[in-house]
Amino acid sequence: MKILVINTGSSSIKYQLFDMEKQKAVVNGLAEKIGEKTSILTHKLIDNQGNGKKKIEEGRLANHAEGLERIVELLVDPEFGAIRDKSEISAVGHRVVHGGEAFQESIIINEKVLAAVKKNIPLAPLHNPPNLTGIEVAQNIFPDVPHVGVFDTSFHQTIPRRAYLYAVPYSLYEKQRVRRYGFHGTSHAYVAEEAAAYLKRPIEELKLITIHLGNGASMAAVKNGRCIDTSMGLTPLEGLVMGTRCGDVDPALPYFMARNLNMTIDEIDKTLNKQSGLKGLCGDNDMRNVEEKAVSGDELSALALEIYSYRIKKYIGAYYASLGHLDAIIFTAGIGENSPLIRGMCCEGLDSLGISVDACKNKEPRKDIREISPPNSQIKVLVIPTNEEKKIAMETERIVKRNGCGQTGRK
Amino acid sequence: MKILVINTGSSSIKYQLFDMEKQKAVVNGLAEKIGEKTSILTHKLIDNQGNGKKKIEEGRLANHAEGLERIVELLVDPEFGAIRDKSEISAVGHRVVHGGEAFQESIIINEKVLAAVKKNIPLAPLHNPPNLTGIEVAQNIFPDVPHVGVFDTSFHQTIPRRAYLYAVPYSLYEKQRVRRYGFHGTSHAYVAEEAAAYLKRPIEELKLITIHLGNGASMAAVKNGRCIDTSMGLTPLEGLVMGTRCGDVDPALPYFMARNLNMTIDEIDKTLNKQSGLKGLCGDNDMRNVEEKAVSGDELSALALEIYSYRIKKYIGAYYASLGHLDAIIFTAGIGENSPLIRGMCCEGLDSLGISVDACKNKEPRKDIREISPPNSQIKVLVIPTNEEKKIAMETERIVKRNGCGQTGRK
Repeated sequence: MKILVINTGSSSIKYQLFDMEKQKAVVNGLAEKIGEKTSILTHKLIDNQGNGKKKIEEGRLANHAEGLERIVELLVDPEFGAIRDKSEISAVGHRVVHGGEAFQESIIINEKVLAAVKKNIPLAPLHNPPNLTGIEVAQNIFPDVPHVGVFDTSFHQTIPRRAYLYAVPYSLYEKQRVRRYGFHGTSHAYVAEEAAAYLKRPIEELKLITIHLGNGASMAAVKNGRCIDTSMGLTPLEGLVMGTRCGDVDPALPYFMARNLNMTIDEIDKTLNKQSGLKGLCGDNDMRNVEEKAVSGDELSALALEIYSYRIKKYIGAYYASLGHLDAIIFTAGIGENSPLIRGMCCEGLDSLGISVDACKNKEPRKDIREISPPNSQIKVLVIPTNEEKKIAMETERIVKRNGCGQTGRK
Repeated sequence: MKILVINTGSSSIKYQLFDMEKQKAVVNGLAEKIGEKTSILTHKLIDNQGNGKKKIEEGRLANHAEGLERIVELLVDPEFGAIRDKSEISAVGHRVVHGGEAFQESIIINEKVLAAVKKNIPLAPLHNPPNLTGIEVAQNIFPDVPHVGVFDTSFHQTIPRRAYLYAVPYSLYEKQRVRRYGFHGTSHAYVAEEAAAYLKRPIEELKLITIHLGNGASMAAVKNGRCIDTSMGLTPLEGLVMGTRCGDVDPALPYFMARNLNMTIDEIDKTLNKQSGLKGLCGDNDMRNVEEKAVSGDELSALALEIYSYRIKKYIGAYYASLGHLDAIIFTAGIGENSPLIRGMCCEGLDSLGISVDACKNKEPRKDIREISPPNSQIKVLVIPTNEEKKIAMETERIVKRNGCGQTGRK
């Protein structure tokens, strides 16, 4: 079975074509600056050894429809394609950011699902509209295959009320659905399952803390395979320090900024989402640069690293308390997979809690799943590469098979 | 030495007269509704057995000066007073809410100090102005004794940068002094010292978590006598669930409320400060009522208790991680001292972390310092009555003696 995975942004389409027999992506790519004067399409054919053959096209893609059409042409291109005809694609998996409370898991997209995703636009005004565009465009090009929505939020729908409700007027939840939703669910779910496989234990008996550190960053407490808490909230702004997002602050800060700096609510929103985090603290939102500068003596960069990892350390303690027991901590995503410095700082001084990192193992420049805690640790510290696209493909396959709608088209 | 302790609010003066030889308050009282048509002055003379003789006066107190003058008349009243002449008072200790970064500890109030407290008004617009009024009025009535400022914030000034800086543009700290300050410092410091005395160990080697649960609520991580983190932030809105304050929420919530509910920044501020917390969740901000209703089956009240104690549990874990080691957890203030239910819920399921509560000990209706953890627990769970006024008196005495300015007047 071949599955196309699509992640549509306001001016971009990220895509991967998966061969589910091989459990691998055979093509990946990104169309960006869609609708601008010059769009860029970067396409890569991946061979069995994992090596890529790349093609970069510049030229105007007027809209997402044009973008996806060109992507499909490349998928069947004799030189850069991986299939002979688009009919070889059995299903399309769509990343959808905000499923609200409607979706406990991935689902075949139909009119009812589209209506629910639309209803959640106020909760994710920047993400859900392009996700909907992506679905519409893909349904036009692939009218006869099932389309599956895989939500960033659905893994977190098992979080109990004590953890997802804010202590604000209850009517805000009843009427506006103000609550913690959490994001990066696909990644948290994927690495939790990978951890169980690695530890050779059923996920149903594991207490895990998953730490996704990319440009966005979040943590989750996963008890017996079910998420019971996560650091992002109503929006992806809450929780950890991120590239440009502040994470946790005093909720009176917006008021302070409005009153004392005469800022509008839009300016405040922009400041907290785009000019904060690592960038706000030290001027750079790329962790590699921040680490380099810190090593060369830049004080604010060093401070940013401290604040960044101290926040994670506090969440490790908090989620340990939530879980009541802990089997493993998992670092994943760009920074989690590639920064021994951050991993080390997050776990420093936690020996009393049974958590520690072996300095040598932590520094090994490996790319596979690995254990970086000392040999006899009760609590394992793991590094697990995430793969959200693969998880979306797996989810799509699972849902399609369960619903009995395969290559033959819509149910 | 007799010390008058004053806590001035916008329309109130709370006061206690301490006899430092006895280490006890001999008089306490509250003037409220100052400036309104009918003010109320409740005054109590306390005898050696701790019994009080109460006098309640109703009548207009036009302003704080009139209020304090009447209070002083009562202090020297033949029937209800504890001194013969106001000259017996050697010093006045003032509670000041926000000392900003200017005050690492309590200090003799002079022009420079007053200017610094004024400068911090933007950080505590509701509290610092009445505190300043209280100082001015008391200096007029007691011109010849030292006045000492004891700040809610100063105990937290040892918090390191990684814990007090938010991940927002660094200029907000540099120019506006946006950072975590923390409050209830007098209470956290007092119970930490009481804990050390109870445990018969030097505070310099203890790792403590202090949990102050009153109508306002906050926690602190105290390492070797120095505060290293606390849950309140720039303002007293951050952190735990409180009577009417929300504590931690997604920092994008104000934006969501402005955009989707057309609320002004003032309305949002009022909602989060006055209509949230327990009150927002279940309609009542008095914990005794909430517990009663929960016990009688009210679902939202039960939910409010769960959210309230789950938040505390997460902070226990977070501060355990911050401290790296833990000797004792201390519950204090109205709810912390009097609610076995909340104490039990906060510590439930933390056995893996070495924290547990003995159900019987927890329920004993005692008022003194006590241990509620099982006999052999490495980590002690203590209940310690707080006494902020006593701590202010002790601080005032200490500072006055250190500065060599006693009864003889201003230095």
